[in-house]
Amino acid sequence: MDSLTRVAVDAMGGDNAPGEIVKGAAAACSGRNDIEVILVGRQEMIEAELKKLPSVPENIRVENASEVIEMAESPVNAVRKKKDSSIVKGMNMVRRGEADAFVSAGNSGAVLVGGQIIVGRLPGIERPPFASLIPTREGVMLLLDCGASVDSKPSHLVQYAMMGSVYMEKVLGVKNPRVGIVNIGAEEEKGNALVKETFPLLRECKDINFTGSIEARDIPAGGCDVAVCEGFTGNVVLKMYEGTATVLLSAVKEGLMSSLRSKIGAWLIKPALKQTLKTYDASQYGGAPMLGLKGLVVKTHGSSKAVEVEHSIIQCVQFREQRINELISEKLRPAQEDKTE
Amino acid sequence: MDSLTRVAVDAMGGDNAPGEIVKGAAAACSGRNDIEVILVGRQEMIEAELKKLPSVPENIRVENASEVIEMAESPVNAVRKKKDSSIVKGMNMVRRGEADAFVSAGNSGAVLVGGQIIVGRLPGIERPPFASLIPTREGVMLLLDCGASVDSKPSHLVQYAMMGSVYMEKVLGVKNPRVGIVNIGAEEEKGNALVKETFPLLRECKDINFTGSIEARDIPAGGCDVAVCEGFTGNVVLKMYEGTATVLLSAVKEGLMSSLRSKIGAWLIKPALKQTLKTYDASQYGGAPMLGLKGLVVKTHGSSKAVEVEHSIIQCVQFREQRINELISEKLRPAQEDKTE
Repeated sequence: MDSLTRVAVDAMGGDNAPGEIVKGAAAACSGRNDIEVILVGRQEMIEAELKKLPSVPENIRVENASEVIEMAESPVNAVRKKKDSSIVKGMNMVRRGEADAFVSAGNSGAVLVGGQIIVGRLPGIERPPFASLIPTREGVMLLLDCGASVDSKPSHLVQYAMMGSVYMEKVLGVKNPRVGIVNIGAEEEKGNALVKETFPLLRECKDINFTGSIEARDIPAGGCDVAVCEGFTGNVVLKMYEGTATVLLSAVKEGLMSSLRSKIGAWLIKPALKQTLKTYDASQYGGAPMLGLKGLVVKTHGSSKAVEVEHSIIQCVQFREQRINELISEKLRPAQEDKTE
Repeated sequence: MDSLTRVAVDAMGGDNAPGEIVKGAAAACSGRNDIEVILVGRQEMIEAELKKLPSVPENIRVENASEVIEMAESPVNAVRKKKDSSIVKGMNMVRRGEADAFVSAGNSGAVLVGGQIIVGRLPGIERPPFASLIPTREGVMLLLDCGASVDSKPSHLVQYAMMGSVYMEKVLGVKNPRVGIVNIGAEEEKGNALVKETFPLLRECKDINFTGSIEARDIPAGGCDVAVCEGFTGNVVLKMYEGTATVLLSAVKEGLMSSLRSKIGAWLIKPALKQTLKTYDASQYGGAPMLGLKGLVVKTHGSSKAVEVEHSIIQCVQFREQRINELISEKLRPAQEDKTE
C-alpha cells in the first residue's frame, strides 16, 4: 500500500478562508512525509497566504480554481454551474483518483451535493451521512447523520450504525463500539414511527453492538460510542450542543468579569478551567466525514480555524490507512443483497 | 370572576415526593388568598410532611388517594387501572370543575394520557402539546411541543404556534411574540417534509407574528419567543439543553476543585457566577403546561424540588386569571372551520 495520503483542501471555504485554511494545511504537512496537501482555490490568494508562513512544507502544492461557491449559494445550482470552483475541482480530483480525500469548511450543501454527484456513493449505500465526533464526559461519540439527509428510512439508520461502528473501531480505536439510537425515552416502545421501526432492525443486526435507546439528555455525558438518528434530529443535537455550550460559557465569562473580586478569582482559576474544558473542545477531532462515498469527503465547521483544518487533514490519513471504505463495502454489500429496498 | 384559583397537586409524583411537593405547595399558598391547593395522595404520608412545616397555611388541604402511579409504569394501563391514584384523582377534580388546574412531577406519560382522556381537549384542538419555558440569553422562550406527541402534522404545528403565542403574550407579557419554527437552516427551502409543509402555513397565519426558521444553535441565545416543532424534535432540544448544561457546569466545577489555586479562585468567583447563572435557572419558570385542554395540567420535572413546585402552582393563577383557555378557544375554533382535517 502506498504510504502517501493525498488530501485536496478547499482553500476558499469557510469564514476564515484562505488564511486559516492555508495555515492549517501547512501545520498538517509539517514534518510528515505521509501526507500531501493540494490547496485548491485562487492561486494568487493562496500563494499570498503561503508567503506569510515562516516556511512552506514541500508536501504542499496549489491547484488553481478560479471560482468560489459562496456560503449562502444554492448548492445544486452552484455545483452544476461553477465547474471551476474549489469544491467542484477538489471533488473531481477525488473522483479521478488524483486525491484520496477532500476537506472543506465551505458551503455544507455544496459539499453534500458534490459528494453524492461527483465523488459518488459506494455500491449498496443508500444515503451517505455526515458523521460528527462530539466530545462527551466519557471521551467522544460519533453522531450520525448530522444533516446530510432528512426524512430517512429505517434501512438508512441501520447503514449509519454499521458505517459508524467501522469508523469508531478503526479510526478511533474503540473496541466493539456501543451503538445507541437517539430517542425520547429509554424504553423500546418510546419514539416516533422511524425509531420504532428501526429499533428491532438494529437489535437483529449482527455486525453491531446495539445497546438500545439513548436520550438526548445523556448524549453529552456519553453512554454510547455511535449514536444514530435521522439527519434533522442529528443536526438539532449537534447545534443544540454547540449553542448551549457557547451561551453558557460566555455567561460564565461575563460572570467572571462582573467585579474586581471575581476578576481576581478568574485569574486564579484560568489554568485549571482551561485544562478541564479542553476535553470538550471539538476542534481536536477534525471535521465530519461523509461516510459511504467512493473516496473521503470531510466537512469541517464553517468557522474552522487552522487547528480544525489541520486535524481534519490528519484524520484522512487514518481513514485511508485503516481502509475504512473497503471495510464499509465488505460489510454493507452482502447486507444489501437480501433487501428489497 | 371568582378570585380563587384551585390547584390540585400530585403529592406522590416525582423523585422528591412527597417532601418537596408538600413544601412547594406550602410556599405557594403562604400569604396568598388567591390560591387554594389540594394535595392529592396518601393522606398519612402527606400529613406527616405537613407536620414537619413550621406552620401549615389555611388554604391547603389534603385529598386522599390510595394508589401511586410509579415513574416507570406503562401510562395507558396505569391511568386505566389505578382509579384511586393521585394522578387520576387530581385529573378528575379538574374534569368535574372541583379544581382549575392539576400539577404533577410524576410519570409524564400518565400525565399526558390523563390530560387527554380525563381532562379532555378543547373543541378544535387536534393535539395538546407540552409547552416548556426555556431560559435564553435574551430571557425566556416557549418551546412546544416538547414531546406530548410525535409524528405531528403541519396543522398541529400551526395550532402550537397560535396557542404558544397566546400563552407568551398573556402569561409572560411578551407583546406580539415572535414565532419561529425549529429548523436545520435559516432558508425557507431547508428542512424536512414537515417543516417545508408547515412553513407557508405559518407565514399565512394572521394570528401570529411568524419570523421564520430558528436553528437549534440559536435557541439558547434567544431569537424568538415561541419556537414550534414536532414533539420528538422538541424533546431532543429540551433534553440536549439540560444535558449539555449539566455536563458543562459540572466540568467547570471539577476544574475549580482541581488545585489549591483554583479552589481559592472558586471562592472568589462564587457570588458573581451564581448571579449570572441564575438567568439560566429553569426552575424559576415552573413546569410545562399542556395547552389546549379543558382545564390546566402542568407537568413539572421529575426531579423538581420545592421551588419548581411552588412556581408551577403560582403559574396556574396567571393562566386562569388571563383566561388562556377561553382565548385559545376563541382563536382556534374559527380557524378550524375551514380546515378539512
